[in-house]
Amino acid sequence: MRIVVIGGVAAGMSAASQARRRDPGCEVVVLDRGHDISYSACGMPYNIGDPARGVDDLVILNAETARSERGIDVRTRHAVQAIDVSRRVVKIADLNAGSDYELSWDALVIASGATAIRPAVPGLDLAGVFVLRDLTDARHIKRHLADVKVSTAVVVGAGYIGIEMADVLHGLGIAVSMLEKADQVLPGFAPAIVDVAAHALERHGVSVQTATSLQRVQRDGVDLLVHSDRGVIRVQIVIVAVGVRPDVALAREAGIALGASGAIAVDSAMRTSAPGVFAAGDCAEAHHLVLGRPSWIPLGTTANKQGKVAGANAARAAGAAGGDQHFGGIVGSAGFKCFDLEVARTGLGSSEIAHAGLDAVAAVSTHHTRARSYPGDKPITTVVYAERGSGRLLGAQMIGGEAVAKRIDVFATALHARMTLAQIEALDLTYAPPFAPVYDPILIAASVGVKALAKRR
Amino acid sequence: MRIVVIGGVAAGMSAASQARRRDPGCEVVVLDRGHDISYSACGMPYNIGDPARGVDDLVILNAETARSERGIDVRTRHAVQAIDVSRRVVKIADLNAGSDYELSWDALVIASGATAIRPAVPGLDLAGVFVLRDLTDARHIKRHLADVKVSTAVVVGAGYIGIEMADVLHGLGIAVSMLEKADQVLPGFAPAIVDVAAHALERHGVSVQTATSLQRVQRDGVDLLVHSDRGVIRVQIVIVAVGVRPDVALAREAGIALGASGAIAVDSAMRTSAPGVFAAGDCAEAHHLVLGRPSWIPLGTTANKQGKVAGANAARAAGAAGGDQHFGGIVGSAGFKCFDLEVARTGLGSSEIAHAGLDAVAAVSTHHTRARSYPGDKPITTVVYAERGSGRLLGAQMIGGEAVAKRIDVFATALHARMTLAQIEALDLTYAPPFAPVYDPILIAASVGVKALAKRR
Repeated sequence: MRIVVIGGVAAGMSAASQARRRDPGCEVVVLDRGHDISYSACGMPYNIGDPARGVDDLVILNAETARSERGIDVRTRHAVQAIDVSRRVVKIADLNAGSDYELSWDALVIASGATAIRPAVPGLDLAGVFVLRDLTDARHIKRHLADVKVSTAVVVGAGYIGIEMADVLHGLGIAVSMLEKADQVLPGFAPAIVDVAAHALERHGVSVQTATSLQRVQRDGVDLLVHSDRGVIRVQIVIVAVGVRPDVALAREAGIALGASGAIAVDSAMRTSAPGVFAAGDCAEAHHLVLGRPSWIPLGTTANKQGKVAGANAARAAGAAGGDQHFGGIVGSAGFKCFDLEVARTGLGSSEIAHAGLDAVAAVSTHHTRARSYPGDKPITTVVYAERGSGRLLGAQMIGGEAVAKRIDVFATALHARMTLAQIEALDLTYAPPFAPVYDPILIAASVGVKALAKRR
Repeated sequence: MRIVVIGGVAAGMSAASQARRRDPGCEVVVLDRGHDISYSACGMPYNIGDPARGVDDLVILNAETARSERGIDVRTRHAVQAIDVSRRVVKIADLNAGSDYELSWDALVIASGATAIRPAVPGLDLAGVFVLRDLTDARHIKRHLADVKVSTAVVVGAGYIGIEMADVLHGLGIAVSMLEKADQVLPGFAPAIVDVAAHALERHGVSVQTATSLQRVQRDGVDLLVHSDRGVIRVQIVIVAVGVRPDVALAREAGIALGASGAIAVDSAMRTSAPGVFAAGDCAEAHHLVLGRPSWIPLGTTANKQGKVAGANAARAAGAAGGDQHFGGIVGSAGFKCFDLEVARTGLGSSEIAHAGLDAVAAVSTHHTRARSYPGDKPITTVVYAERGSGRLLGAQMIGGEAVAKRIDVFATALHARMTLAQIEALDLTYAPPFAPVYDPILIAASVGVKALAKRR
């Protein structure tokens, strides 16, 4: 029996490894159109920021080790052209050999990931203009930074990846300008968080133009001219980080159902609408526990977890023992570094709350990461959203100098447990001067939220 | 109407402030036998470690400000001698004036705290031998360190405070020896945590003698000779940190019921057995949510929260509006710094589990605080305890280089929500290379625990 996996990064390799672990007798073939498998995509910006490290540092498992140690038949530079659900075959182009072939499967896992969105403007194919989606992109960016004297850069898009790239380029001594179409950096984050992030960008000399659209990029000798509706910026590198979309072309053409988000619809066993076909990772939806419906939030943790479930169940579907795993769903937790600050969020933001038709109160609080009497104490800002009436936490966002991401994890846990702000306010959290004030910022945020709920009832 | 509060530190001042906030018309008198009120006791070791800072830095609210800004009648150096529950009066010795008087109350809050245990061995009254319980102790220690050339020290007791003191004395360039009666440092912590802590002490040149009893301290010129059953150590300072006991003498003599722990028995409204009498903080018990019964774990956060509840309800009992507050209970969360490591715990440890007659599995895991590809990644060790059968989390302990205390808060939140390890394993926690690996140590710990539960079923 054979399990075929399309895509060899986080979800795909998790699925392949899990299927082999469940049943060492089954044949597992991983097909990836790229050169690399199993790498830390989230680590790419930081790797780019460190010229001393090779991009290959990000590889968790290379194809050879996957073959020899895990018994996985990894085929890189093999692009799947079509999925035939009724005949249970995939059509493959071997990009190395320049030939095509078919491969049959007993179970199929689609882990085709997401592709970078490229705005439809002229000049994005010029040398020196990059997206950052896979290791090949990372290699090209590093080579460009090594070969060309880059003193100025434009980053298009001020979301997570855009800000991470601005951070690392700034660290390399490059003057960075950011262009963002929305009227704020960090679209989706609350104003109180955005203000602190924008101030951090300003403090580090990053020029940010919000409500600004990229119009075209032009070459001018060794330089690139970046035209927006606000003017022209002369740079030597352009990073386009305006988001990703699920890579669902193969699934759609095979007649596999997509969800409302545009990603592949799956149940908690990662089954798609086609029998024996599973999907996992950035190409698939995930059940959002706060919304109570499917959503699409492509993130590495989710990809790994979904891949594991898909692999176990694919092995079972192909006839192996075990399986019947379920993915527990997401609450939308994410974190990133913004220069000397940590930023993180979990649950719903204001636009998701509005879109879901929920009636919520937002409460902003600022507090401290340590006891005030302890050196190195840093400010921290928290926004919590809670449902009017029930008082249930709907989401939380934080920005501050330290221990933000793991504090957000407390809110994430509270979302899983469907806690109210009053219950969060009563949590027995650790206190020690080096790590937290007597009332942790989490408790203060909940307390301010409880008061806001009472006031506006 | 008058509310009298015995004790002016965390619980006492929280109670007094809350009572005044609830009803600005009520008279609130705080009686404290010491010189100081409202200070950060937990900050004392770190303050001692910094000769440039005054001890008064730890004062949150001084008596004068409490009087002028909060309208609280603070009387320092006023020692309560007795509580007369039937006549509703306290008998007070004014230590400044050398006179006694009585004060009647409509509601009374006992926040008499805890006192340091002093082993019954000769020499503990010698100059240079200290406990660390209040600001006066901290001042004496700092003065001694400034006046005497201290090159070697003994810390008796290797619990939280002992290790914090060893840490700061070592930071002052003093060679530190520790004596601990138990057969391990950090009594109550799991062997896997203790091993890492003991190694940190060793790495920093701290000599630790476990299973060792202090026998006596002797003066020898400018030095002190510390005799134990293992030999003699010559030092210039001795810190005795062998624990505290609840200061319940007044309550006991007044016929107020004590709990099984020896601390004052209270309900969730912080009411004692005597009508109109409340207790809060280190002198009182707290409902332990994991054990489902009262316990005594004296900590600053609990003191502050209980004080607030006691103050609100005392105001109500005295006839003021509002009140009817309840303390939500504890799960036993605590954290501290151990040289370059953070240590934290929540819930039950193995002896508490055994004592409660619970059947539990312990699972140890070691992982990383960041993605391995990100610089500055540090090891982290986690122990989780879960109930056999139900799989419910009973407790967790962690030690590592960063973000330990706030990770323990995730386990604490899970304890409040009575989560199983399987539910914790499914949590959607933040991932970003600078702050966490794809599978956070919390998830790995839960996963290892789930496997241990399955294996030993």
